[in-house]
Amino acid sequence: MPNAVPALRETEALPQPYLLFLGDVAEPGYAKTAFGLRDWAGDRCVGEYACTGATVSTGLPFLSPAQARMLGARSMVIGVANPGGRIPSTWIAPLLEALQAGLDLIGGMHARLADIEPLRNAAVVHGRRLIDVREPPPGLPVASGRKRSGRRLLTIGTDCALGKKYTALSLARAFNARGVDADFRASGQTGILIAGAGVPMDAVVADFAAGAAETLSPDADPAHWDVIEGQGSLSHPAYAGVSLSLLHGSQPDVIVVCHAHGRERVLGHPHYLLPSLEETIDLALRLGARTNPSIRCAGVSLNTAGLDDADARRAIAGTADRVGLPVADPMRGGEAFERLVDACLA
Amino acid sequence: MPNAVPALRETEALPQPYLLFLGDVAEPGYAKTAFGLRDWAGDRCVGEYACTGATVSTGLPFLSPAQARMLGARSMVIGVANPGGRIPSTWIAPLLEALQAGLDLIGGMHARLADIEPLRNAAVVHGRRLIDVREPPPGLPVASGRKRSGRRLLTIGTDCALGKKYTALSLARAFNARGVDADFRASGQTGILIAGAGVPMDAVVADFAAGAAETLSPDADPAHWDVIEGQGSLSHPAYAGVSLSLLHGSQPDVIVVCHAHGRERVLGHPHYLLPSLEETIDLALRLGARTNPSIRCAGVSLNTAGLDDADARRAIAGTADRVGLPVADPMRGGEAFERLVDACLA
Repeated sequence: MPNAVPALRETEALPQPYLLFLGDVAEPGYAKTAFGLRDWAGDRCVGEYACTGATVSTGLPFLSPAQARMLGARSMVIGVANPGGRIPSTWIAPLLEALQAGLDLIGGMHARLADIEPLRNAAVVHGRRLIDVREPPPGLPVASGRKRSGRRLLTIGTDCALGKKYTALSLARAFNARGVDADFRASGQTGILIAGAGVPMDAVVADFAAGAAETLSPDADPAHWDVIEGQGSLSHPAYAGVSLSLLHGSQPDVIVVCHAHGRERVLGHPHYLLPSLEETIDLALRLGARTNPSIRCAGVSLNTAGLDDADARRAIAGTADRVGLPVADPMRGGEAFERLVDACLA
Repeated sequence: MPNAVPALRETEALPQPYLLFLGDVAEPGYAKTAFGLRDWAGDRCVGEYACTGATVSTGLPFLSPAQARMLGARSMVIGVANPGGRIPSTWIAPLLEALQAGLDLIGGMHARLADIEPLRNAAVVHGRRLIDVREPPPGLPVASGRKRSGRRLLTIGTDCALGKKYTALSLARAFNARGVDADFRASGQTGILIAGAGVPMDAVVADFAAGAAETLSPDADPAHWDVIEGQGSLSHPAYAGVSLSLLHGSQPDVIVVCHAHGRERVLGHPHYLLPSLEETIDLALRLGARTNPSIRCAGVSLNTAGLDDADARRAIAGTADRVGLPVADPMRGGEAFERLVDACLA
């Protein structure tokens, strides 16, 4: 599995390192946030903590909040995304324990930490922060459309939930491995926890969405790359507006289009067929050219999870033949992925 | 000038008729909201009120809040949009007078009525409401993308502030004049005051923007038309996401593309050239087909304000020749406009 991506250098970054909180989770799928942090920000996770009875582990050392604080932890992150996004009453005692031990609390669930009175009171008493990463930063501007310095890559999806974040993380890491100065820029809650900073695009008021995307990748050194996590899809019946705002505000020089092999219909909207890769590339280039006329598509990131190696190779080769661009599954790496990285940096 | 469009029949409509409040305005341009209400909802405006020293008038009778209440008014509307959107301290006394007289207060400025303590207290004491039409309704859903019954028209712009609202109002009135059952659907604050209901699209959280647009034109009788006020432009560097969410959620059968004769650059973003009418039509049809494959463009609404009659006729004829569709300035009416209405209903 991947190594960590470098933390951002922003002064307003989230308090790190983290202690990962697993609640009372017994189903690994609900601990995706904790696993994502272990995989992509492992050097900034000192350990894990959980309620009695939790059976899922990230494999990191089990530490009490006080022990984690001694080892340098500055916050405890809720690493769970359970259905409904609720914070059960059984979590309150361990969350209070973290505040008492001197850790800030970070959450990204629907339920806001600051809406829970005992947590709010304890945070005041102990001088700690309750940070909800779904809250957009205050004072977001309307987009200016002004061209910014530095280089930018945005991952674009044929749908939601098929690898835009993992693709951006993989590319940022590969850029760094080649000595290219690059930052992963997070536009959703899990990505924000991994990067330690970012903007939750889906929670921004519509008029400021492109402006929020502009603040996400500010002016930078001409040789620097921002590798920006995409959101939704330009053809999504519910979220296309978010995707377009992110595209316009990001002003990407390069896009990488992400698709899940075999997916034919929009997740949660089965009466909508997915757009083809060709249509997705063409539409993204047409719309993206509005704020960056030199936008180009470097290739395709194909999620082949569930295929064996031979089938994955066939799917990747078949897609590359069809679209005439480099295609790779970043989770499988290899030469195909190196060719995709070449094309991004070309 | 135009007659009133019919008020919506919604139970959650704004309290009407209105008393229009002009504050201490001495510059007619800042009273645009009041003029728009006089022109398009005149039958629901009992009169006007203002601070001592105001020099602008809508021509409606000057009434105290108590007199207006006696004549049936149910609310006083702030009809002013001054720079900065502030509510000056000199307005507080007349606003309190309206609450005391039994009128609700309606505002659409940046400053929220409910943030002003004396107004909040007086509203409680007198059992009145402070209504901010910039506040989106609670509980907006994520868009489903499900096709709804009834017919829909959406006005689409090459830019902001060039006649999308007036075009939609004119078309809804013309449909009604021909005996076609049609409602104007408002997506911005002035439109909401005119219609008495609507959704302020620019204030909705991005993830719910297309869902908000779906609630704006609900299932209706198959012969019924919703004529929906467009927002922004699909090529606007700051607001395209709002425009795309409104397009997807509206599922229009028909679009009318609105342009201001002679405008070449995006208002407030002079480094961006406006897209051509042809590009705007093509892009809107391509994107709109995602949620309504039978979308078509009926024609162009050309804002010719500032031209004399002969020049306006030439501009309209020249544009019609170029795009090969009916073109009219709804504010000038005439045969060209009737042909545009024909094309919408064809």
